[in-house]
Amino acid sequence: QDAHLARNLAATCANCHGTNGQARGDMRPLAGLPADRIMAAMADYKRGALPATIMHQIAKGYTDEQIRLVAGYFAAQPARP
Amino acid sequence: QDAHLARNLAATCANCHGTNGQARGDMRPLAGLPADRIMAAMADYKRGALPATIMHQIAKGYTDEQIRLVAGYFAAQPARP
Repeated sequence: QDAHLARNLAATCANCHGTNGQARGDMRPLAGLPADRIMAAMADYKRGALPATIMHQIAKGYTDEQIRLVAGYFAAQPARP
Repeated sequence: QDAHLARNLAATCANCHGTNGQARGDMRPLAGLPADRIMAAMADYKRGALPATIMHQIAKGYTDEQIRLVAGYFAAQPARP
């Protein structure tokens, strides 16, 4: 498997959640979040169980495996101090 | 079929493309664009043939039928003067 697959998949998220998920301002940071929390939130967005502006739509474009990879990537990032 | 399905699907796009796709500023308007142009662009985003920040990911979450409905919805909107 491509060693950078997780990072490449997660790159899209930087547009709103900041580089490596180290968000600024009032956007929710992803860096350092437990992977299972990210996966649970994405599953909820995917099935419309969480109100969202665009996350419900973005989540639908990922497979569960891709979400697992992205969640693991952000969990491994140092949270912004 | 739900009479408002197209409009409801298209509501997500308003977050960036403005209400009814009548974008302001430098964001690309969708209102009044020919449906086939919107469908062609979404197909290109979906298969990664068009560079994008998040559109490549957003497009993957729609079926072709949903894209057809959304494109028809925006084509029917009056372009912002």
